[in-house]
Amino acid sequence: MCEPRRHGDSARDAFGFDLLARDARARRGRLRTPHGAVETPAFVAVATQATLKGVDPAAAAAVGTQVLFANTYHLYLRPGAELVAEHGGLHRFMGWERPLLTDSGGFQVFSLGASIEHRVGKVANIFPDEPGGSGGGPRLAARGGSMVRVGEDEVRFVSHVDGSRHVFTPEKSIAIQRALGADMVLAFDECTSPLHDEAYTRASMLRTHRWARRCLEAFERETPVHPQRQALFGVVQGGAFERLRRESAEVIGGLPFDGMAIGGNLGRSHADMHRVLEWTLAALPEALPRHLLGIGDVPGILAAVVRGVDTFDCVVPTRNARTGTVLARWDDDGRARRGFRFNLKNAGFARDRRPLEQACDCATCRRFSRAYLRHLLKAGESLGPQLLSVHNLRFMERLMLELREAIEANRLRACVLAWLAHDASLAAAVLGERSVPTG
Amino acid sequence: MCEPRRHGDSARDAFGFDLLARDARARRGRLRTPHGAVETPAFVAVATQATLKGVDPAAAAAVGTQVLFANTYHLYLRPGAELVAEHGGLHRFMGWERPLLTDSGGFQVFSLGASIEHRVGKVANIFPDEPGGSGGGPRLAARGGSMVRVGEDEVRFVSHVDGSRHVFTPEKSIAIQRALGADMVLAFDECTSPLHDEAYTRASMLRTHRWARRCLEAFERETPVHPQRQALFGVVQGGAFERLRRESAEVIGGLPFDGMAIGGNLGRSHADMHRVLEWTLAALPEALPRHLLGIGDVPGILAAVVRGVDTFDCVVPTRNARTGTVLARWDDDGRARRGFRFNLKNAGFARDRRPLEQACDCATCRRFSRAYLRHLLKAGESLGPQLLSVHNLRFMERLMLELREAIEANRLRACVLAWLAHDASLAAAVLGERSVPTG
Repeated sequence: MCEPRRHGDSARDAFGFDLLARDARARRGRLRTPHGAVETPAFVAVATQATLKGVDPAAAAAVGTQVLFANTYHLYLRPGAELVAEHGGLHRFMGWERPLLTDSGGFQVFSLGASIEHRVGKVANIFPDEPGGSGGGPRLAARGGSMVRVGEDEVRFVSHVDGSRHVFTPEKSIAIQRALGADMVLAFDECTSPLHDEAYTRASMLRTHRWARRCLEAFERETPVHPQRQALFGVVQGGAFERLRRESAEVIGGLPFDGMAIGGNLGRSHADMHRVLEWTLAALPEALPRHLLGIGDVPGILAAVVRGVDTFDCVVPTRNARTGTVLARWDDDGRARRGFRFNLKNAGFARDRRPLEQACDCATCRRFSRAYLRHLLKAGESLGPQLLSVHNLRFMERLMLELREAIEANRLRACVLAWLAHDASLAAAVLGERSVPTG
Repeated sequence: MCEPRRHGDSARDAFGFDLLARDARARRGRLRTPHGAVETPAFVAVATQATLKGVDPAAAAAVGTQVLFANTYHLYLRPGAELVAEHGGLHRFMGWERPLLTDSGGFQVFSLGASIEHRVGKVANIFPDEPGGSGGGPRLAARGGSMVRVGEDEVRFVSHVDGSRHVFTPEKSIAIQRALGADMVLAFDECTSPLHDEAYTRASMLRTHRWARRCLEAFERETPVHPQRQALFGVVQGGAFERLRRESAEVIGGLPFDGMAIGGNLGRSHADMHRVLEWTLAALPEALPRHLLGIGDVPGILAAVVRGVDTFDCVVPTRNARTGTVLARWDDDGRARRGFRFNLKNAGFARDRRPLEQACDCATCRRFSRAYLRHLLKAGESLGPQLLSVHNLRFMERLMLELREAIEANRLRACVLAWLAHDASLAAAVLGERSVPTG
């Protein structure tokens, strides 16, 4: 069991992480927060703009969603952190009483900045009065109308909402996240891309480490806007380079954070990601919870859990729902579905009176046929993505429940083999084994 | 109390209308259907494509929505009545266990046809092989890409979905509605517009009367697709012409329908509608339920209830929600809101932490602030219209509950005066009085 290692808050036990069971490197844990516990391994559903797109928070809770992830960058721009603070924080603002996590806004440095650094997107000098960058980072970028510049002390960017100019610093990210009041908040980092070479990735990583210390200082200094305890997670960077990942995990793991997040470029393949996870996790403190940023495909989740990741977030369940993509394990002949999904818009489902998944217990599968849900999608009715999101979120929760039970029973390997029985080489890679028995 | 006057179904009591109380001409009733009772006066929410736009049926039931209205024209085109029948009918298809009403598809004759009759829209001959109409009705029309021709025996039209050609007859409308399986279905009619003169309106009305008889015959002849009892409502036409409305009410009221619907052009003003209702209702049988098609504004509902209408349908609650318009009685200073609504997108609500309506008990008002809901609208999040729809539907149910209680207590006049205290001339018109006390 791990108690917070610092912060003299009165609510000392408000945040903590209990390791309940292990199965090889996999962990079964419990994250304690002021808004209740998160049983891990857990999927963190993404509510970018303080809403799980199209899903009522009551419906999310009903399918077992334990924890949501909101984006500091988006909420800072709209509606603004001050407004959220006036409501008593994000939980009350968005009507979500369970645990919440916010990112630092740093991911936007990557998603908006990588495009110029490598001339992928349009380049435009929107800060003509201030030539040159201070930290050797990317200069000016425009992608989708947004632009950003990374410096040693700050990141400057232009709002994608209204074109206004803004500055983020590690301190400002912490102040915003204090105002938003999520249970878990992230240190401000720069997220590099697969297009960055080792030299730039290293320079960026070292800057992220300096920002991590500034975040810790700011977090200690900053009076919490909301009386409830928040936990601060450090973010490991280093791209797909072994030396850098090990170094970043050592440095971030050695700082007095409450939890660890693994960010940035995980490589270009499953095998790359597996290696990055192994390098990183080997160097992280055992006692702290570990969050993997932006992973939500089934093989990715299985590989992360096998290696000792506790939580991960992804937009997959709701984004897929909006395109008519349904998460499902088996097809109707009992074979694993390709990618564990199918597109409900396919004509073959037009008269199909079965539920999305035969085995699913969600409010959508209990009430509606594939034909009805397909009708809603074809007719452009928003109830379609809404009901598919409910199912997709429940799919994730059922997967996580199965993984937690498997770890408790020391049969995670068998569970992974069962999920990937149709692809022995993927199963071996996910398990980190040379080969696995087939069929 | 009125029992069905015909049909030798085994489920003889499955449909009926009980008159429970009266207050002058206003009626407090109960519509009994195989899917439960509807306490009247009742608002019928519109689920055009077998979905109350963006609202989960469970959420609609939770705010007290008693009965939904689905559109035969839309469901015939997509997904098709046969598919719905395969599901066991609309209730099971759309997951709605309470009463349902379908229209006949005839309204599309008006909404697509009026535009050519008066050269309002584009005109194009899409049936070049068949010159001339058989019934002296409108010729060919195009509005929004759809086209229609009305004849004595049939209506020909082009699908707004895929441009395919279709024919509706009274018999076909009944067969489709039998397959859809709503508790209450409508006879096929032509709905005239305020632009039609008395001569055309009379010719159209007489054709609607002939169609009414054909619908009754088809309804008797047609074996129900679903074993449950359906009720057939006749539709009164006649435009805003006194002679025609009285004649149509006499004719339709004299046919063996289970209920009466008032359709077509109600004139150009509140006063016109009041007159049309008075001419029509005076000639309709007291014992049958009376539905007014397409009315959903508060003064319109009050005027209809005062004159003895039992149910009405309108898209207002959900359509308004999609534009950010909130139904609400009072402003924050306790004055009646203009039109009993406000636009939540107004900047004045940006930091407003109050619920949409202080007195509202809906799932939206209990959980969310105006500022949060406005944030969702401004951010283009579909949860915004979804949560506003829930509130707007609840507003309607609270209004209807208040009217039912007022009729039971014989104080409907006082209730109407209270709703319209800010506009004495409107109150007098709604009540059908020369003037009302002010102040």
